[in-house]
Amino acid sequence: MPTVLDLSLDAAALTAALVDLPSVSGDEQALADAVEQALRELPLLRVDRYGNNVVARTRLGLAERVVLAGHLDTVPIAENLPSRLEGERLYGCGTTDMKSGVAVQLKIAYEVGRADGASPDRDLTFVFYDCEEIEAARNGLGHLVREHPDWLAADFAVLLEPTDGRIEGGCKGTMRARITTRGVRAHSGRDWLGVNAIHAASAVLTRLAEYKAREVEVEGLVYRECLNAVGVSGGVAGNVIPDECVVTVNYRFAPDLTEEQAAEHIRAVFADFEVEITDSAPAAAPGLSLPSAAEFARVVGGAPEAKQGWTDVARFAGLGVPAVNYGPGDSRLAHTRGEFVEVARIAQAVERMRAWLGLDAGSR
Amino acid sequence: MPTVLDLSLDAAALTAALVDLPSVSGDEQALADAVEQALRELPLLRVDRYGNNVVARTRLGLAERVVLAGHLDTVPIAENLPSRLEGERLYGCGTTDMKSGVAVQLKIAYEVGRADGASPDRDLTFVFYDCEEIEAARNGLGHLVREHPDWLAADFAVLLEPTDGRIEGGCKGTMRARITTRGVRAHSGRDWLGVNAIHAASAVLTRLAEYKAREVEVEGLVYRECLNAVGVSGGVAGNVIPDECVVTVNYRFAPDLTEEQAAEHIRAVFADFEVEITDSAPAAAPGLSLPSAAEFARVVGGAPEAKQGWTDVARFAGLGVPAVNYGPGDSRLAHTRGEFVEVARIAQAVERMRAWLGLDAGSR
Repeated sequence: MPTVLDLSLDAAALTAALVDLPSVSGDEQALADAVEQALRELPLLRVDRYGNNVVARTRLGLAERVVLAGHLDTVPIAENLPSRLEGERLYGCGTTDMKSGVAVQLKIAYEVGRADGASPDRDLTFVFYDCEEIEAARNGLGHLVREHPDWLAADFAVLLEPTDGRIEGGCKGTMRARITTRGVRAHSGRDWLGVNAIHAASAVLTRLAEYKAREVEVEGLVYRECLNAVGVSGGVAGNVIPDECVVTVNYRFAPDLTEEQAAEHIRAVFADFEVEITDSAPAAAPGLSLPSAAEFARVVGGAPEAKQGWTDVARFAGLGVPAVNYGPGDSRLAHTRGEFVEVARIAQAVERMRAWLGLDAGSR
Repeated sequence: MPTVLDLSLDAAALTAALVDLPSVSGDEQALADAVEQALRELPLLRVDRYGNNVVARTRLGLAERVVLAGHLDTVPIAENLPSRLEGERLYGCGTTDMKSGVAVQLKIAYEVGRADGASPDRDLTFVFYDCEEIEAARNGLGHLVREHPDWLAADFAVLLEPTDGRIEGGCKGTMRARITTRGVRAHSGRDWLGVNAIHAASAVLTRLAEYKAREVEVEGLVYRECLNAVGVSGGVAGNVIPDECVVTVNYRFAPDLTEEQAAEHIRAVFADFEVEITDSAPAAAPGLSLPSAAEFARVVGGAPEAKQGWTDVARFAGLGVPAVNYGPGDSRLAHTRGEFVEVARIAQAVERMRAWLGLDAGSR
């Protein structure tokens, strides 16, 4: 029998219940079942499921639709379950990344989905997806984008990843490339018969070490680009002049560049070397100039910041849906053994969402 | 029953017999048995054995003693057995490296070891050893140096490694070191929070690329030093600023330096980096100024050359025995599938050895 989630619990208690239903990436079925079952109890929501991804939508015919999205999975448990409340902090795997965010989604869904619930001033789509913490090919939101983009149609999206209660807008793109230098093998006692490919890579590394990264302002947010070697390998044997060396670089680029432009830039920086682009994900503009986003920023308060990492907001951007990150968790605690969330932040996030969505106005 | 080696065969036929008794490194027992048995038939030789290493010595009480040494093992067979005579070439695994050299040793041993044999003008020590082609710790000559150095006592040694019939004197030393750069891990989307250890290695590679190697004359032979990266590795994950990068360098140093001086040089070149010496083998001076060596050079003819690779002559040098490389094989063919030896070279090497040792003077 599936676990029953009681959505009438307060947001912190609901977070604890979600944390105590472990859902390490690839093992989200029990939690997806529980979420689906709880949402199907709410008559004003249409619920769809694809794999371990659950999407619930109001159908109020309002002028605007916004998405609240979160992933169900966590990184592996690190002797930090079950959850444990200590003073004002709730400890445990997933407390900050991001079951506190999922609890906020579910609390809002519970409020707008009940027959006697409150009326929001925008239609709402709740997206719960799997496999965010592992390789991109398994990402549940990516699967929904490909198979059911209509479920995700909206004017604006909020991803409830941990942001310490601030708005982080858009995200930088990320691209990896292999820069290869080649030489000629020879015995290392007779190096004049060969050409050392590792020595040739010194020019690649020097270029990286001296690289001046751009800082780019987009819609008032400043994105700091990064270009780094994230790997280097070369060598045949301890007595052989190596004939190949590969430097793997990662370029994090601002939302003013397309992936094509980012690839052009890498090729220009390493113009005299062999360059192979190996993988890439686009940047996303914050979309903060949209009315819905601007109002969200006003209600949440504080100056929005640029998201420097890559997040799934880029998947929404790919569908033409501007998106921001905003969640009660603390991003510095994500993936740590000592992960926790401040209980007060969860309730605060629910209240801010309610204010933004006009739920303070009372029930139908 | 062990294979019987017929030492009365001509040198080329004896080489073929040795080649057809496979002895890949670690699997030399059958060949060592056959060599030992053949040598024990010779009454004027004292034969000792340690593992798969066989040492045979004349005890004529002459003023000088010289060693003829060779290894019994070969690199792995590469569809190149049994041996095959084509015109003037004998093909097969080990023909050049170095069973043709072993055949020369055995022909001389056969000549001086028989009761009716010829009298050399120097006492002779024949050394046959195992595991030369693999890791140094298993090298049979190294084991003899450690366990039975008295068996190797001599005034001069000739190692019958392939040298195309020329004398190659001494050898360069070889030393490996790890040059490590360190940084601070961070997410590659926020590189300003970290320090990239691979970028820091650019200074190491640039120093190697710009390094001017010495050419050192020792006893008239010119040794060209080499300092090279033979490996580089660094990187944690595709989205992490790496906190460590290791460049493995190999320094091939001339016989005017001790191992300690070579290590000092590496530490001086990379003075501002973390340097760990990981392994080392000394260089060997050619010893060509010794009368016995000078006479050997005169008889063999041609200008001696410096040995640029490291060979087991350095193990003799470590015992205070000057040594040169001289053998009938072609060093460029060693370890190749198409390995062969020119038949005429084997007989030529026997004749030159005989001339040097005064065996042309006739039998006792």
